[in-house]
Amino acid sequence: MKVEILNTGSELLLGRTLNTHGHWLGRELFKLGLRVERLTTVPDGDAIRDGIAEAVERADVLIVTGGLGPTSDDITREAAAEVAGLELIEDEAALRSLEAFFEIRGRTMAPDNRKQAQVPVGADVLPNPNGTAPGIFIPPRLNGAANCAVFLLPGPPRELQPMYHAEVVPKLTALGGIESAVGIIELKFTGLGESEIHQAVDAKLGAIDGLEVGYCARLAEVDVRLIGPPDALESGRALVLSRFAKQCFSELGEELEEAVVRELKQRALKVATAESCTGGLISARITDVPGSSAVFTHGFVTYANEAKVELLGVSEEALGEYGAVSEPVARQMADGALSASNADIAVAVTGIAGPDGGTDDKPVGTVFIALAAKGRETMVLRQFHPRDRMGFKRAVSQAALECIRRAAVDRG
Amino acid sequence: MKVEILNTGSELLLGRTLNTHGHWLGRELFKLGLRVERLTTVPDGDAIRDGIAEAVERADVLIVTGGLGPTSDDITREAAAEVAGLELIEDEAALRSLEAFFEIRGRTMAPDNRKQAQVPVGADVLPNPNGTAPGIFIPPRLNGAANCAVFLLPGPPRELQPMYHAEVVPKLTALGGIESAVGIIELKFTGLGESEIHQAVDAKLGAIDGLEVGYCARLAEVDVRLIGPPDALESGRALVLSRFAKQCFSELGEELEEAVVRELKQRALKVATAESCTGGLISARITDVPGSSAVFTHGFVTYANEAKVELLGVSEEALGEYGAVSEPVARQMADGALSASNADIAVAVTGIAGPDGGTDDKPVGTVFIALAAKGRETMVLRQFHPRDRMGFKRAVSQAALECIRRAAVDRG
Repeated sequence: MKVEILNTGSELLLGRTLNTHGHWLGRELFKLGLRVERLTTVPDGDAIRDGIAEAVERADVLIVTGGLGPTSDDITREAAAEVAGLELIEDEAALRSLEAFFEIRGRTMAPDNRKQAQVPVGADVLPNPNGTAPGIFIPPRLNGAANCAVFLLPGPPRELQPMYHAEVVPKLTALGGIESAVGIIELKFTGLGESEIHQAVDAKLGAIDGLEVGYCARLAEVDVRLIGPPDALESGRALVLSRFAKQCFSELGEELEEAVVRELKQRALKVATAESCTGGLISARITDVPGSSAVFTHGFVTYANEAKVELLGVSEEALGEYGAVSEPVARQMADGALSASNADIAVAVTGIAGPDGGTDDKPVGTVFIALAAKGRETMVLRQFHPRDRMGFKRAVSQAALECIRRAAVDRG
Repeated sequence: MKVEILNTGSELLLGRTLNTHGHWLGRELFKLGLRVERLTTVPDGDAIRDGIAEAVERADVLIVTGGLGPTSDDITREAAAEVAGLELIEDEAALRSLEAFFEIRGRTMAPDNRKQAQVPVGADVLPNPNGTAPGIFIPPRLNGAANCAVFLLPGPPRELQPMYHAEVVPKLTALGGIESAVGIIELKFTGLGESEIHQAVDAKLGAIDGLEVGYCARLAEVDVRLIGPPDALESGRALVLSRFAKQCFSELGEELEEAVVRELKQRALKVATAESCTGGLISARITDVPGSSAVFTHGFVTYANEAKVELLGVSEEALGEYGAVSEPVARQMADGALSASNADIAVAVTGIAGPDGGTDDKPVGTVFIALAAKGRETMVLRQFHPRDRMGFKRAVSQAALECIRRAAVDRG
């Protein structure tokens, strides 16, 4: 089954908005055994019609994103109807959902929104509980000789992604052509370099029959991707883990924060955070995980020295003698967070995110990460992440989350 | 001058690597007054030749990225030569650069690398000081009737970006067709729906000669993009702001957190945060901005009730009588954060991120946002953001940041 994606939106071509749909859809479609053959991005306007007309001739399935909004440059609906030679009519049910969307939020529906309830005759409406634009599915037979299934999905990821799972996957499955004999495993590691893993296991993985191997270096994370039949997958998995089990935080495709919450929950442990340079990113990541309230209660964002003293009991002496970015201050922050929160584990970070504030001794990118836990000595790591500000914060949050995860796992 | 981009690489279509070239090149080309008319992504292999052959028929300039490496699936060089009907020959100078690249690094050149010195007859070699793959420029006349200029650039951003500046920009300028009279303005709004803005100003904007208008709805944000000559831009800007100046948080293409830090800094104001449902996201966004330590000192992540009592002085009575997600608790959180931090402004949020925890009275998505400021009455908003957990957190952080921004602006 040949799948193509057409992303619409001038902002994508002006470099104003980073296009993440191709990435997300490519990954999700692969889980169904489908590979995207081509991804095309066109600006708003007539180019959308050309893009659809060309793609339906090549593909069996076309997923179009964006251009379903209420404004005059949103013409995906019209373009798809024109290519299929279908008339657009107002759909009663879609109109009622649209009205309800505004009513629930106590807002008045603008007249322009009404066009979002228009649907090509014979096409299916895909409900959108997260926004105003319903999706549309034009079955292959309605596209005449081209015989291509066309999905029109809303542009915002938070609307598109749930709609893909709820509406597109079942329809793709019904269309057939889904392989399932080949699986995918993603092992995720942190605290290791890509070349370190590659060097240790690549040749041996290459000797496993039918196994396709990919490596992906992310920020302070390496993912090893194995694709193949079940027995090859299992051999590959065992091989990699025989070497790097300790650094593998997930075999389930989880984010590190999900693994952290899972490990803490399993052991009924609670964690507290004391953040300086990450400014709340560690706690924000932990609380991104549903159910994290079972493991996380107190977070301290002590950006200023006064805050470190007032909230965590860091001593003025330590701040004066060693500076805020130092081993003793990180240690006192973690100890202070542990006692102020009554958690089982506390992590603290203090570092220099830059662009300013670096010194010869402690250049931008320097960070101290402390881990305190009941009944165990507090330990402090010094790390160096010479990256831009956002990259630094992300790398430090990754290292801090990994400290929490290992402390939890060490509890057995 | 019609510009197209062709990105090659199977990893881009498997969703394993996020394609950032389109974004980066789109933004850079716009600075030259050039617009990307289409961006196509194809997998390694024959699809590259099809992609080039189709694009040269439509475009005046084609930029191809990737596929210049030493391995067997890197066929961009061969495909471009085939489409132009040119023979590939080994370029002496390119081969010497390649050898030098390895020599400087004390590495031995693999035989496979030698093919990277091959160049279509008559084409220009674009030196690559940052990697092994030189770029290639095929002038329009060599593409026969299609008369399209083709640039082949290496895939890694660290190689492509310097080559673009050093080699591509001068050649594009020499080709002519660069407009420079056209500018871009991006006005960003929050607290407004896309259709609301559209309804109010679109017809009038449409009447301004030479002005191109685009709308982009983000999560709890709408961007209005104006493109055109200076006088049209100014008329468009004045028109939109005459109606929505209050909701416009930036004319500089900033993120909301950047605008918040800028407004606070200008007035030498400090802000503190007290977060329950956002779990630190508000402070994490504020501290994403360089220099935010001048305006942000204390953040309280009070996820559990005990934390609200212990750190912010929220009363057990209010928690018992009204619940943690309530107007009185939000108010006490903001007041408590203000006095515990000695900031000028404090924002507090308490809500139900879901997926669990909703009730009939307070369904998932309910949030109370309180704003306390020295010398002014604390105010509390109740909002409803029925989204998934991450979307809810983002929308609440957006509303809270906007509360801070308006409180700062109101100080005059």
